[in-house]
Amino acid sequence: MTDTLYTGISQLVTPRPGPQRGAAMRELKVIENAALLVRDGQIGWVGPAAEAPRADHEHDLGGVAVVPGLVDPHTHAVWAGDRLADFEARVEGVSYETILARGGGIRSTMRATAAASVAELVALARPRLQALWDSGATTVEVKSGYGLDFGAEIRMLGAVHELAAEFTLVPTLLIHVPPTEGREAYVQAICEELIPEVAREGLATAVDVFCEKEAFSVAETRVILEAARTHGFATKLHADQFHALGGVELACELGALSVDHLEASGPAQVAALAASPTVATVLPGVTLHLGLPAAPARALIDAGACVAVGTDLNPGSSPVFSSGLALALTVRLCGLTPAEALSACTVNAAAALGLGDRGALVPGQRADFLALHSADWRDLAYTLGANPVRGVWMGGAPVTPSVQGAV
Amino acid sequence: MTDTLYTGISQLVTPRPGPQRGAAMRELKVIENAALLVRDGQIGWVGPAAEAPRADHEHDLGGVAVVPGLVDPHTHAVWAGDRLADFEARVEGVSYETILARGGGIRSTMRATAAASVAELVALARPRLQALWDSGATTVEVKSGYGLDFGAEIRMLGAVHELAAEFTLVPTLLIHVPPTEGREAYVQAICEELIPEVAREGLATAVDVFCEKEAFSVAETRVILEAARTHGFATKLHADQFHALGGVELACELGALSVDHLEASGPAQVAALAASPTVATVLPGVTLHLGLPAAPARALIDAGACVAVGTDLNPGSSPVFSSGLALALTVRLCGLTPAEALSACTVNAAAALGLGDRGALVPGQRADFLALHSADWRDLAYTLGANPVRGVWMGGAPVTPSVQGAV
Ligand SMILES: [Zn+2]
Ligand SMILES: [Zn+2]
Repeated sequence: MTDTLYTGISQLVTPRPGPQRGAAMRELKVIENAALLVRDGQIGWVGPAAEAPRADHEHDLGGVAVVPGLVDPHTHAVWAGDRLADFEARVEGVSYETILARGGGIRSTMRATAAASVAELVALARPRLQALWDSGATTVEVKSGYGLDFGAEIRMLGAVHELAAEFTLVPTLLIHVPPTEGREAYVQAICEELIPEVAREGLATAVDVFCEKEAFSVAETRVILEAARTHGFATKLHADQFHALGGVELACELGALSVDHLEASGPAQVAALAASPTVATVLPGVTLHLGLPAAPARALIDAGACVAVGTDLNPGSSPVFSSGLALALTVRLCGLTPAEALSACTVNAAAALGLGDRGALVPGQRADFLALHSADWRDLAYTLGANPVRGVWMGGAPVTPSVQGAV
Repeated sequence: MTDTLYTGISQLVTPRPGPQRGAAMRELKVIENAALLVRDGQIGWVGPAAEAPRADHEHDLGGVAVVPGLVDPHTHAVWAGDRLADFEARVEGVSYETILARGGGIRSTMRATAAASVAELVALARPRLQALWDSGATTVEVKSGYGLDFGAEIRMLGAVHELAAEFTLVPTLLIHVPPTEGREAYVQAICEELIPEVAREGLATAVDVFCEKEAFSVAETRVILEAARTHGFATKLHADQFHALGGVELACELGALSVDHLEASGPAQVAALAASPTVATVLPGVTLHLGLPAAPARALIDAGACVAVGTDLNPGSSPVFSSGLALALTVRLCGLTPAEALSACTVNAAAALGLGDRGALVPGQRADFLALHSADWRDLAYTLGANPVRGVWMGGAPVTPSVQGAV
């Protein structure tokens, strides 16, 4: 058993462990002139450097701030094809209907993803996950959902499984796009074939459903998530992105880990989440990329909810390859304070994945932490367009950011 | 005389040289499977690889897109101190008046900058300029303006002069903040002491004035810019950031190189710029960071104006350390197409600095160019949170992005 003591920490900054709600999201613990002891991949001790225990090895970080590794609780990082022509057309004012009619939109991503092998999907996703890692994300959730046929869904999850040898990933089975016909039989097959197979193969830890007018109804979502629970899965929802149909209320009723998007949520949904352990995950990259309204994250915190933040990395609505940028955007676009944003991106994001062992720098937690370039941790929320993260430690092992991440 | 031929270029993409106005901003030249010949720091030839001339050296870029180096025509990259406490207070809802009363705001930056030596200013600015460079900015304008006393202004320009040994910089004397008393004498001293001294020492190429209710009036701005012209300086204005006072009209009348900000510009100002060679420079980082309205860049282009984009890198209103992010934000926040944004960040930004020798990849221009990670140049506008630039060439010399830029 070897210990490493990290010194030269201008500020060690952490939320308390476990999900933090409402005003508690602002209550960070800040230790000036700190030290951090890593033992067996976990935090062994944190405190003022003057009181640090002896260790086998000592590493001086040179006077910079240290924060917990970020957790990205919502990505669609596995896809093939690109949406550059869609992007260009949209900003030129072409309607989404026309883009779809030209063969673009989400179904083009689904065709390209369904046509790709697992090895191709792995090769395409690797630099995206590297970019997230460079940005400080030490745990990343990745969803399936671009495979209309079940074989493609299984290949997507197989790609995540392979990539989990290189990155710390949490795989989610996402029921994303209904078929153009035969919906009832499709939902039945999801419940009776796909979910059981994914459970048998151990390919996901949660099941997520896109509950929206153009996707699955609240009734369909309930049927799918109840089947998921029967097979031992945790549950999540994409809800209230465009319409508050009742997905938030269903998430709270079912005890979902999280309900994500919430741009169309109103006071009733805010109140429901404030009274529920379900995490409210907001995705500010979509707000920036599509120019749509932001989720009411400020109101959610003020009401006492537990708010998390994700990149929603995906080719159509959020080409955001940085968890640090997601954190910084939440301050600008959702009105969170830097402290609230840090809690949202660490302990609360971990809670959105059902993980209680990470996100806070206290003894017993995973030694996932970031050394910044700056002596002041608030540079993490402040800096735009450059990476404020100088070094990343995962389970106590140092990882240097690569020169460049995504393509 | 040695030539280097760059091959393996999936797409060579460039605007036409010189300032592009209105619809011409969208007219990029795209050469597929291209090659590019560098000779003596300039572009010697571009065209299809199959027709490329022979060269002494050949370098295969591996099938990626090549675009001109970006030009950042508006930064305040030299400052001391930080505004992190201001940032946190503002997002917590503290008013700017209260922040000022606490000793924050722009005057805290001025105090810290005035107290710093040239060597300190150089050391503080270097990583910021490195970050801009990594993001693809091969020419960067840097303004003075945080020195209320003239000695501090001269030291700021002295720092830019020293940094120009490492980066390609264009220095601007910015008359930024009026004194709390004795304005008339101050304006007179600017005209009779500061401007002549900066001219004598060759410390700037242009003079800029912040024309705004809380800064200099239109009448004061006119007096200062007329003195600047007398001493051979080009002129620029910060105008219409909060109020359309007449700064745009003055800029057009005086033949200023550019007028920058324009968030408060209306149809009259758009029409004035459409009829003028003065470049309209927009600064989307301010829009994101402060949550204020964007400049009417879409209307300006539709009316036929010449629009450029800058980071406005500064600690108070735009901590944007990436010209690539400024480009990408212009698409999201100002409604420009990727092609318009590329023209705005290259030839038009060069025109905003009075430079006609860069920004386009045509023979005779400076060999400032970028190799992207992607085979499709539109990834430059699309990617958020990761750097789409793999390599930077300045005057034909390759520069690898550093692992990390700012802070
Ligand atoms: Zn999603
Ligand atoms: Zn400015």
